[in-house]
Amino acid sequence: MKAWGGRFTSSVDPRAEGFTSSISFDRRLYKQDIAGSIAHARMLEARGIIDSGDMERIVSGLKEILREIDEGVFEFRTADEDIHLNIERRLVEKIGETGGKLHTARSRNDQVAVDTRLYTLDSIETVKSGIAGLQTSIVARAKEHLGAIMPGYTHLQRAQPVLFSHHLMAYFWMLLRDYRRFSDCGTRTAVSPLGAGALAGTTHDIDPEMTAGELGLPSVFDNSVDAVADRDYIIEFISSCALLMMHLSRMCEELVVWSSAEFGFIEMHDSFATGSSIMPQKKNPDVAELIRGKTGRVYGDLVALLTTMKGLPLAYHSDMQEDKERLFDAVDTAASCLGVCAGMIDTMKVNKERMEDFAAAGFINATEVADYLAGRGIPFRKAHEVTGRIVRYCIDKGISISDMSLGELKRFSAEFAEDVYELLSPESCVSRRKTRGGTAPERVREQIESAEKILASMP
Amino acid sequence: MKAWGGRFTSSVDPRAEGFTSSISFDRRLYKQDIAGSIAHARMLEARGIIDSGDMERIVSGLKEILREIDEGVFEFRTADEDIHLNIERRLVEKIGETGGKLHTARSRNDQVAVDTRLYTLDSIETVKSGIAGLQTSIVARAKEHLGAIMPGYTHLQRAQPVLFSHHLMAYFWMLLRDYRRFSDCGTRTAVSPLGAGALAGTTHDIDPEMTAGELGLPSVFDNSVDAVADRDYIIEFISSCALLMMHLSRMCEELVVWSSAEFGFIEMHDSFATGSSIMPQKKNPDVAELIRGKTGRVYGDLVALLTTMKGLPLAYHSDMQEDKERLFDAVDTAASCLGVCAGMIDTMKVNKERMEDFAAAGFINATEVADYLAGRGIPFRKAHEVTGRIVRYCIDKGISISDMSLGELKRFSAEFAEDVYELLSPESCVSRRKTRGGTAPERVREQIESAEKILASMP
Amino acid sequence: MKAWGGRFTSSVDPRAEGFTSSISFDRRLYKQDIAGSIAHARMLEARGIIDSGDMERIVSGLKEILREIDEGVFEFRTADEDIHLNIERRLVEKIGETGGKLHTARSRNDQVAVDTRLYTLDSIETVKSGIAGLQTSIVARAKEHLGAIMPGYTHLQRAQPVLFSHHLMAYFWMLLRDYRRFSDCGTRTAVSPLGAGALAGTTHDIDPEMTAGELGLPSVFDNSVDAVADRDYIIEFISSCALLMMHLSRMCEELVVWSSAEFGFIEMHDSFATGSSIMPQKKNPDVAELIRGKTGRVYGDLVALLTTMKGLPLAYHSDMQEDKERLFDAVDTAASCLGVCAGMIDTMKVNKERMEDFAAAGFINATEVADYLAGRGIPFRKAHEVTGRIVRYCIDKGISISDMSLGELKRFSAEFAEDVYELLSPESCVSRRKTRGGTAPERVREQIESAEKILASMP
Amino acid sequence: MKAWGGRFTSSVDPRAEGFTSSISFDRRLYKQDIAGSIAHARMLEARGIIDSGDMERIVSGLKEILREIDEGVFEFRTADEDIHLNIERRLVEKIGETGGKLHTARSRNDQVAVDTRLYTLDSIETVKSGIAGLQTSIVARAKEHLGAIMPGYTHLQRAQPVLFSHHLMAYFWMLLRDYRRFSDCGTRTAVSPLGAGALAGTTHDIDPEMTAGELGLPSVFDNSVDAVADRDYIIEFISSCALLMMHLSRMCEELVVWSSAEFGFIEMHDSFATGSSIMPQKKNPDVAELIRGKTGRVYGDLVALLTTMKGLPLAYHSDMQEDKERLFDAVDTAASCLGVCAGMIDTMKVNKERMEDFAAAGFINATEVADYLAGRGIPFRKAHEVTGRIVRYCIDKGISISDMSLGELKRFSAEFAEDVYELLSPESCVSRRKTRGGTAPERVREQIESAEKILASMP
Repeated sequence: MKAWGGRFTSSVDPRAEGFTSSISFDRRLYKQDIAGSIAHARMLEARGIIDSGDMERIVSGLKEILREIDEGVFEFRTADEDIHLNIERRLVEKIGETGGKLHTARSRNDQVAVDTRLYTLDSIETVKSGIAGLQTSIVARAKEHLGAIMPGYTHLQRAQPVLFSHHLMAYFWMLLRDYRRFSDCGTRTAVSPLGAGALAGTTHDIDPEMTAGELGLPSVFDNSVDAVADRDYIIEFISSCALLMMHLSRMCEELVVWSSAEFGFIEMHDSFATGSSIMPQKKNPDVAELIRGKTGRVYGDLVALLTTMKGLPLAYHSDMQEDKERLFDAVDTAASCLGVCAGMIDTMKVNKERMEDFAAAGFINATEVADYLAGRGIPFRKAHEVTGRIVRYCIDKGISISDMSLGELKRFSAEFAEDVYELLSPESCVSRRKTRGGTAPERVREQIESAEKILASMP
Repeated sequence: MKAWGGRFTSSVDPRAEGFTSSISFDRRLYKQDIAGSIAHARMLEARGIIDSGDMERIVSGLKEILREIDEGVFEFRTADEDIHLNIERRLVEKIGETGGKLHTARSRNDQVAVDTRLYTLDSIETVKSGIAGLQTSIVARAKEHLGAIMPGYTHLQRAQPVLFSHHLMAYFWMLLRDYRRFSDCGTRTAVSPLGAGALAGTTHDIDPEMTAGELGLPSVFDNSVDAVADRDYIIEFISSCALLMMHLSRMCEELVVWSSAEFGFIEMHDSFATGSSIMPQKKNPDVAELIRGKTGRVYGDLVALLTTMKGLPLAYHSDMQEDKERLFDAVDTAASCLGVCAGMIDTMKVNKERMEDFAAAGFINATEVADYLAGRGIPFRKAHEVTGRIVRYCIDKGISISDMSLGELKRFSAEFAEDVYELLSPESCVSRRKTRGGTAPERVREQIESAEKILASMP
Repeated sequence: MKAWGGRFTSSVDPRAEGFTSSISFDRRLYKQDIAGSIAHARMLEARGIIDSGDMERIVSGLKEILREIDEGVFEFRTADEDIHLNIERRLVEKIGETGGKLHTARSRNDQVAVDTRLYTLDSIETVKSGIAGLQTSIVARAKEHLGAIMPGYTHLQRAQPVLFSHHLMAYFWMLLRDYRRFSDCGTRTAVSPLGAGALAGTTHDIDPEMTAGELGLPSVFDNSVDAVADRDYIIEFISSCALLMMHLSRMCEELVVWSSAEFGFIEMHDSFATGSSIMPQKKNPDVAELIRGKTGRVYGDLVALLTTMKGLPLAYHSDMQEDKERLFDAVDTAASCLGVCAGMIDTMKVNKERMEDFAAAGFINATEVADYLAGRGIPFRKAHEVTGRIVRYCIDKGISISDMSLGELKRFSAEFAEDVYELLSPESCVSRRKTRGGTAPERVREQIESAEKILASMP
Repeated sequence: MKAWGGRFTSSVDPRAEGFTSSISFDRRLYKQDIAGSIAHARMLEARGIIDSGDMERIVSGLKEILREIDEGVFEFRTADEDIHLNIERRLVEKIGETGGKLHTARSRNDQVAVDTRLYTLDSIETVKSGIAGLQTSIVARAKEHLGAIMPGYTHLQRAQPVLFSHHLMAYFWMLLRDYRRFSDCGTRTAVSPLGAGALAGTTHDIDPEMTAGELGLPSVFDNSVDAVADRDYIIEFISSCALLMMHLSRMCEELVVWSSAEFGFIEMHDSFATGSSIMPQKKNPDVAELIRGKTGRVYGDLVALLTTMKGLPLAYHSDMQEDKERLFDAVDTAASCLGVCAGMIDTMKVNKERMEDFAAAGFINATEVADYLAGRGIPFRKAHEVTGRIVRYCIDKGISISDMSLGELKRFSAEFAEDVYELLSPESCVSRRKTRGGTAPERVREQIESAEKILASMP
């Protein structure tokens, strides 16, 4: 079915038909398309544009088509260009020429806009639910291991001891920002474009608020040209996916590094790892690697759509047909990554002893020494420099700070006294960082409680 | 001034020093850095960590430095690495070792995070104000030309007549989404990271809520590791700039096309155009071209920072030093483009007659014919096909639809009657599209009024 | 079939299995995989690692599998992870445990590297052939319309008249650079990685040169770690596709603009255009739009893979599994765009009269006037300024330069004489630009001849 | 100086002037611009278009200007738009109206094209020289440490032992591909566009081959429209920089990971590391981090320019003015990263003992066991599975394979004999991988010799 044969004298070249047809991918919009058409038909009837018999025939025909597609018996045809015309062709087969009335006061331009908005809204819910699932896994592991101390890193150098749970919870808050960003995107997506027609509105006496209401969309377009020319909601959705994937890539990088024999902080469960075809000893954290790698894919989706929309005059252009595959790829990737990531977190083994051994080694407590001196009135910059020289002294002698005698310490500053030694254990380092957001156990417990409340409040 | 000399035995290689130093660009953060330091100093005094004399010396020293930088007499040194240490070095020169106490309970990691958050908040205000300015220009021109009819386009083919004001107002609504997106970004940016220290919090008994309050930030970080590892706010800001630039690129593409001799809908004012070094007749819309071209720049800023943050373990890494130049470039580009775009819109000449001539030509009223038939009970698909054949007939005869006699029309459908001719003028096409968001004059007038109210409510 | 069960105690989680399995897309590599395996088996026999009976069983088994896949009767299994193991599993089914000997002295790491290299080489040939096809169409149309004059544009403003053929031929040379870039990429791709094993080479006494020779690859890897860690060839291929798409986007933008009623330089053939579901008069150049839009897709593929490879330690990581879908998408997109673009060029109608009317209008001959004065010894800058004032004078009077009397001209410069009028026609403008690469008919004819020779020399 | 005042009635708005002026950045092209002008002036004289007195005045004026700019005494003016007009204005100040003759038979369009081509050629040489410098450092360190064994990694899991030198040399070959890619780019860049004029060629009887020859460019443009519309050479240059940066990001990621306390394979020299403002013990590999981070920047430059050029009609548009800053940023970033990277490699301390300890640990020799069995006629897949079970057995008992008695081994396969123990040391693993490109010492020595020859042959 072509929607536009009248003025043409020759038929479409098969190459062009295959190239421009979108049915191979936009069939994924069938639920949204049918929902939009049912809402449109009801509105047409409410406004007296079609009669109630026609409306009922149309609606029940559409519901049958929905069932046919759900059950896999619907025949999609490339020559029918897209999901809209495939469904309409089938509707006409079922109910005759009445099916043709459905397109009154509507254009494919506002129809595809409402389909993709509804699909994006569903995608937002899918991703939000995946985020909440991963957050739940994080909180559970953080709670399970509360008390375990690991070296905190900056520049991948041991910096200061932190609770493993504190480090893990950092991802909870990143993901919470993602969650809220998707919610904000949802607000801007939930706007009905139906009634914008091809670009100028329609001469029929329609009721755009009613169509929006039928579809559960709280707002209606303000300008018909904008309504059909706008794909911001998809770009904003993919932008949010890109940030989410960036977060997952950071977590997965850490999981890969921690899985190395050298770190050894975690071990992937056999069910979330794979082996090597040649090296029998290998257990590879390849789920984490693949999530990290798929970050590129979603960045690519974002660049693709930003590029496609760059410099397009108003209103609709066929360039915009490229939006759908990028949307589908972004939501598929984000949702599957969130799901397997949660499974991986749930099942990985945490090597508490290994973390704690490393948190006690080296000079990770040097900040405490500098703070000790600063607490005795030495300007911090000076205290830092003195401690740096102490570290240098220890490196040269192959000892740690707690191995130094008080006499040795006093050679660097007269302010040192016996009480400095109390500060040097990892437990002390951690438990003394107890201001808001710090790594002290009571603060992390509060973080977890706060996170649990937030999770409980998510729909 | 190096902040960390103690443990090192040799000094930095000049190549490495030049390479890692950020003072050449992060000096732009000086206001934010000094504001953060003053807030920190006041909090230290309030919590009894420094005494009030020290606090006052620090604060007045910082205020003097602010003045020195404002006046261009401050000496920035590459060897002092960054803005933080340049200012601290100068503070110590001014007030002696007391200056060193300022860094108590603070790290460069939380310091740079607060600086960039404050700078991003300022940038958000700058861009929002630029958006409102451009919207004001748009509304003014839309109001001025209310009534002018132009061909509306899809696929750059004349589609249906629309009001020029309606088309222009489409950009108002795009920009309003941008504005709100920046507001949402602002909410996530206005969180104080001060107190997170290097990554684990601090052992000093500080008051992060007080520091946040001093800086006008409504919230405080929840997790110290996240607080120093997070640059989401910059990425979200640049993502929003990318969408904004995409919108401007579409508008500028239209302005370039409309400035062509072939379209001739507008003419740039001489003050917003340039000539050619070789072709004396040329007047080029190069402000519009350059805005369109700069879209690439901001997309590039976004890709740059997404790439940089991909796969970075927690918490801080020097890779993140790359955030600032991308932020500066994005805000500078967006703000300057908004400014010149408004000036260009304000001053361009609109050729109403030319638009109206083109809106009357061709078959832009064909939809009306199809709708006419549909209104007489013919299914729309059928009506469309009949009209297509009428168009084909006219093309072959070199006439327009309104040139056809009723007899000729009836050969295509018996439903045609005399009243069809009333529908064929551009005025009729436009004024009959009067449902919500449509192009009818009263609807566009309402759009403009609604836009004026929105603008009036912007801060 | 898992290639690595021995050390694992539990089986893969179904979510992880679905997530890490690549068979849904890497099945496209089956021809390359089988070719690589046959070459490897022959080499193993030549080096005495397997006997000739085993080799023959393996090779004939592989050839049967090739036939099964070609005929669509091969059963692909997700649990067998990838194309390599699907084929090997089937080989063992066919010829028993001998099939397991094929993996001697080979790893999936060098196997996938050779598969993707061979696939990239095929892709390069596909794209080169598509480029040559489009170039052939361009040359044919340029030859057909030699003599037609159109306005040349800069800034989308009429600048100087050019031959339509000259303008069209600009794309020939762009595409020739693309062609050569793909050839250069081919040289770097045609390197055999077989023999690199997992990453360190192999202990078996293999002959990498022989395997390379069997596969028609002129070179062999120099370093086994690099051989398995390298995906440069795919990135370079996609980079070249990105440039190619950029060129097509420029051409298609022009075709869209030229198809507008306002320009009217070309009209798409009905077989390469589509209509509107609502506006019966529309004929949309949507093939051109879609090609332009797909530029984003290929840019996205490039960003995706650059991002994925960023910061990956040596040697192989599962992140790299993301390379294949990007490669497939880039070659599919580039090849299909080239094909339909050629068809569109072949069939579009060129409106010579329209172009020539516009080439005669306005002040497109102003450069000639300035050059005329410069030829009489007036410094060009001065001549330009004088001509600019003449143009201004004509705009104000509503005339063109050739309408001015000699007396009027002399009021601007005493140098003007009767012969200036000879220079003002579009024909004169074009034919006088006859230095190398210029738009004069004889130069364009030479361009076309030169292009035909180049095309004839392409394989 | 404006080059185009004549037809304009009002002057440029200061906002537009600041926005469109490029002198703040294109001044970097002054050498190239002057070289191009000198070549052009000589050609004009050779063709009798200007006389030799004028030519000499122009050339000596230009040389003086070159000196003024070199010495920092030249006054750049924003109102003069760009480097071309700043220089021409100064030339007219110096030699009077004769200066205006220089622009005969030239447009800014071909002028800026030749400037950027010459600049890109210089940039290619700069980057190639930086690559050769880094390769030299790599070869020197590989030679110095020949014999040191480290664990080779895939998936960041210990895979098989390799020579440290072999691993390091992998980067030599990556960089060699980069070097050659820049050379190929150079071939396509070294084409003179002078003579293309604004877009159509010129009516003057010029000699484009002579101008090209004066500038050392081996070829001349084929089509004047393409000559001024083309920026492929910059995009190809930045694409090559992006691949180069990807390589550096992989190396720097490894250096960061290796610098961690957990790996401890290398230690950055104090002169190529920085400390922490708060943690006195820290030594951060921030040069490596910053190089890795700057990868994003160059990817961004690439996306920026690809986006800018997408969908631009021919010939020149002001959008293209955005090319220069991206080019400058890419070459500056690539060149500085190469330079500091070489310094970092030269000075870093290699902890041979640490590497060798790790290369002996775990089950890194498991492949040898599987190969041993395969060598005794067991199909490799079967041998792999047996060895996997041996590894599992060792993990459960907390022993390594070499700790197992022959009796224990025989319980897994009857093929084991005493000679298997000879294969299990790292030295044996490495030295037995002696086919081409493998990690055996003699192969790596050959690699180094081959690399030295290649470096010696570089210009």
